[in-house]
Amino acid sequence: MPTEVQLQPMSVKVHPDDNVAIVVNAGGLEAGTLFDSGLKLIEAVPEAHKIALTDIAPGDAVIRYGSIIGYAHVNIAKGSWVHEERMRLPSLPSLDNLPLATAVPAPMPPLDGYTFEGYVNADGSVGTKNILGITTTVQCVAATVNYAVARIKAELLPKYPHVDDVVALTHTYGCGVALDAPGAEIPVRTLRNFSLNPNFGGAPMVVSLGCEKLQPVTLMPSDTLPILNTGPYVVRMQDEEHRSFGEIVTAIMELAEKRLGELNQRRRTTRPAADLVVGLQCGGSDAFSGVTANPAVGYASDMLVRAGATVIFSEVTEVRDAIHLLTARATNADVARDLIREMAWYDDYLARGGVDRSANPSPGNARGGLTNIVEKTLGAVAKAGTAPISGVAGLGERATQKGLVFAATPAGDFVCGTLQTAAGMNVHIFTTGRGTPYGLATVPVIKVSSRTSLSERWSDLIDIDAGTIATGKASIEDVGKQIFQMVLDVASGRKQTWADHWGLHNDLALFNPSPLT
Amino acid sequence: MPTEVQLQPMSVKVHPDDNVAIVVNAGGLEAGTLFDSGLKLIEAVPEAHKIALTDIAPGDAVIRYGSIIGYAHVNIAKGSWVHEERMRLPSLPSLDNLPLATAVPAPMPPLDGYTFEGYVNADGSVGTKNILGITTTVQCVAATVNYAVARIKAELLPKYPHVDDVVALTHTYGCGVALDAPGAEIPVRTLRNFSLNPNFGGAPMVVSLGCEKLQPVTLMPSDTLPILNTGPYVVRMQDEEHRSFGEIVTAIMELAEKRLGELNQRRRTTRPAADLVVGLQCGGSDAFSGVTANPAVGYASDMLVRAGATVIFSEVTEVRDAIHLLTARATNADVARDLIREMAWYDDYLARGGVDRSANPSPGNARGGLTNIVEKTLGAVAKAGTAPISGVAGLGERATQKGLVFAATPAGDFVCGTLQTAAGMNVHIFTTGRGTPYGLATVPVIKVSSRTSLSERWSDLIDIDAGTIATGKASIEDVGKQIFQMVLDVASGRKQTWADHWGLHNDLALFNPSPLT
Repeated sequence: MPTEVQLQPMSVKVHPDDNVAIVVNAGGLEAGTLFDSGLKLIEAVPEAHKIALTDIAPGDAVIRYGSIIGYAHVNIAKGSWVHEERMRLPSLPSLDNLPLATAVPAPMPPLDGYTFEGYVNADGSVGTKNILGITTTVQCVAATVNYAVARIKAELLPKYPHVDDVVALTHTYGCGVALDAPGAEIPVRTLRNFSLNPNFGGAPMVVSLGCEKLQPVTLMPSDTLPILNTGPYVVRMQDEEHRSFGEIVTAIMELAEKRLGELNQRRRTTRPAADLVVGLQCGGSDAFSGVTANPAVGYASDMLVRAGATVIFSEVTEVRDAIHLLTARATNADVARDLIREMAWYDDYLARGGVDRSANPSPGNARGGLTNIVEKTLGAVAKAGTAPISGVAGLGERATQKGLVFAATPAGDFVCGTLQTAAGMNVHIFTTGRGTPYGLATVPVIKVSSRTSLSERWSDLIDIDAGTIATGKASIEDVGKQIFQMVLDVASGRKQTWADHWGLHNDLALFNPSPLT
Repeated sequence: MPTEVQLQPMSVKVHPDDNVAIVVNAGGLEAGTLFDSGLKLIEAVPEAHKIALTDIAPGDAVIRYGSIIGYAHVNIAKGSWVHEERMRLPSLPSLDNLPLATAVPAPMPPLDGYTFEGYVNADGSVGTKNILGITTTVQCVAATVNYAVARIKAELLPKYPHVDDVVALTHTYGCGVALDAPGAEIPVRTLRNFSLNPNFGGAPMVVSLGCEKLQPVTLMPSDTLPILNTGPYVVRMQDEEHRSFGEIVTAIMELAEKRLGELNQRRRTTRPAADLVVGLQCGGSDAFSGVTANPAVGYASDMLVRAGATVIFSEVTEVRDAIHLLTARATNADVARDLIREMAWYDDYLARGGVDRSANPSPGNARGGLTNIVEKTLGAVAKAGTAPISGVAGLGERATQKGLVFAATPAGDFVCGTLQTAAGMNVHIFTTGRGTPYGLATVPVIKVSSRTSLSERWSDLIDIDAGTIATGKASIEDVGKQIFQMVLDVASGRKQTWADHWGLHNDLALFNPSPLT
């Protein structure tokens, strides 16, 4: 008989129709383990992996989250391990004849009175940090800007105590590309909208080489951005007036100091939670992610939507297999069709590159108990809570609606984070099961672990432990409320995330679907 | 009459058959300018732009470098400005029926006795710097490695005075991609070969997350890299033994210190110039590039080849229009077919993305007088001198031949530099007309300007001025020999380039032709 084995039914079997459950116990369980229910394991099953609750015959559906995650292709006896090699993927839902806004959730009761302390911008957006961002048009200037930023931080920033940071927005785009290629608008508008993230105070500053393809006027058309007409905002390295590298650096530092002076005048004011734009993401997921961390984030997401905020979920390839559930949840048929448009674009993009969805999940996901993309999808979608889907932002576009918004992105963490930053996110929630030290320079990132063992091991990287849901120490509601409160605290600058504590700031990663020339 | 106008025939008209010449004078020339030859400008022509030497009728060829760079589509009168809108592109040379090794240059006389001081590696390659490179398998670990490298540089590097630098090889690849996608082998082998660049001493060190797609064993198969079996070379962040971020950083620093101790034992020894692997590139080109800087580099290239070295030229889209000249120059039909294979791959890649070669040149090239890709190509190929082409390295492959080698790359400066570093380059020569502050962390970069005005303005960025060739102050041979000598000096650590002086080190930019998932 196993000793001290706990298997909390709420954490192992998510939906009454499920014919699999998840092992919670750290280290997994041995063959012969007997549960209170009478179920006996006929082989060892690792932590976070699936146990067959009934005999599953070849061709029968494997059901989790109340949905089909695959079909057995061998006999899977009750009490055995349901893994990747014993089942096959269901077919991809067709984009034709999807339900459009047929199951729109009823409006949730408003949640009033929650506020945070933020920086109001001229465009109405609200920052949670006060950062000088220095945009680059092309990789050629990146090293120069990095050199200048190191000096700005050392020599100027200390004189402007109300400015949090100076960040070089470097990237590998801007030249050696065709700006008229199909899809080239994506990296360009991403970089533009990224530079206009609320945390940069609506005051972009650009360093350009001069001869690059992506000219400042294309990146930031001054007729659409009135702020750009209020003073100089570009240093162009090739301009004749700069007679040395030293003079170029001086010119960058002078413009930076002007911007620092402006940003330094700003103060936080009390703002309704409705001014939050919270981006949701998961990375290094395991089978617990969909049972603990993601549902808790889903609870927080519902609270944020009820408070009038914008909540962004993303990752096309991780929602694609549940698209029939999402189009039904859209507030109207137009939003549903926008979802379908983004799925269709991505289907075509992957097909052009000879890739299909079996590329996801990663080997780490599979080792973590996530058998395939359908299972991963159903768990990932739990982050988005239960609100209606009120809008869709295309790749690199700004999210303009309140409520739950789908922003199209690839699933890779950093390219997704970059696109969500461009969508206007001012707080980021990131769930992880396997563990990742993810962080962004522009937006504070709250990391939520799906397992207690991870949050204990990485106590100086994980901000919130949702593993307590699996062990029965806390409910989804408890952890959801904890996440919601931490969003308000971090947005207000009252609490610091671990990523910000260590300065773990990954570079921005532009999504460029077009060829390099 | 214009005063003090100099128009050196050697610099304006490159080939006897040309019907255009280039304005050398800074600031351009006004309408009415009269040359000694009797030619009179009938309109103003900017510096570095083309003058019609004869009347060119619609449909007639415009000839530069003795080759057709386009066809007039209006009447271009003698003495007028030959610009982009007055001519059309010739059609792209077909890849069928190309001449294979039909015009192999005669072997050049050997050049003996030239040496440099380098670091010999176990695999026979020779480094020109002694750097600890820390490879990352995935972007997830980049910020952690950057954090650790800052501490390594501050706390450890000063104790190891024979080590030049510690460099984090961060990138945006490694997860959120399909490793079985067509083309996925390119970024993987690029990162592997980059990590094995001679300047890292053949002692790679890897930081991995744990759950990423690109596992260390895939990136660096230890059966093919015996050095990896001599001791631990990976820190895996998710390993259970690391119980905090602090412990992870400690583990990275401990492995780094072990490697620093090994690298610190190394000393420079005298090596034949044949151990050099010199990469050639141009960026921010203008019409002078093909007249001054590139031919001077071509002269140096021929000297290097005569001394037994490897010289790498690249940039598929910038040689594609001259492919018929290159296949004829290949040492044998196999090499010629390898060239055609790389062109065909790239033609297909661009077509798949809906892009054609008209995406090149950049607007800055055009303003610099380079009308189209054919003109740019003929000027760019001048860098490769006159040697036979002895081999081809595919995208991300190591160059294994001596002599003049074509390494396939896109034309963007940083992705090309990354691929040339992976090809094994230990010195880099970079020509520029418009001016760019290009630099790499791994390999010293010698920057050669095509115009004296640029080298005067950017005296602290440009290493060698080839503009003296246009003004008649120096010959192509003079500047070529100067470049050759600087290669030996920089390779030996006797001279420092401006990019290294300022620490202008752009990040590596992997070429990933496959979709993000």
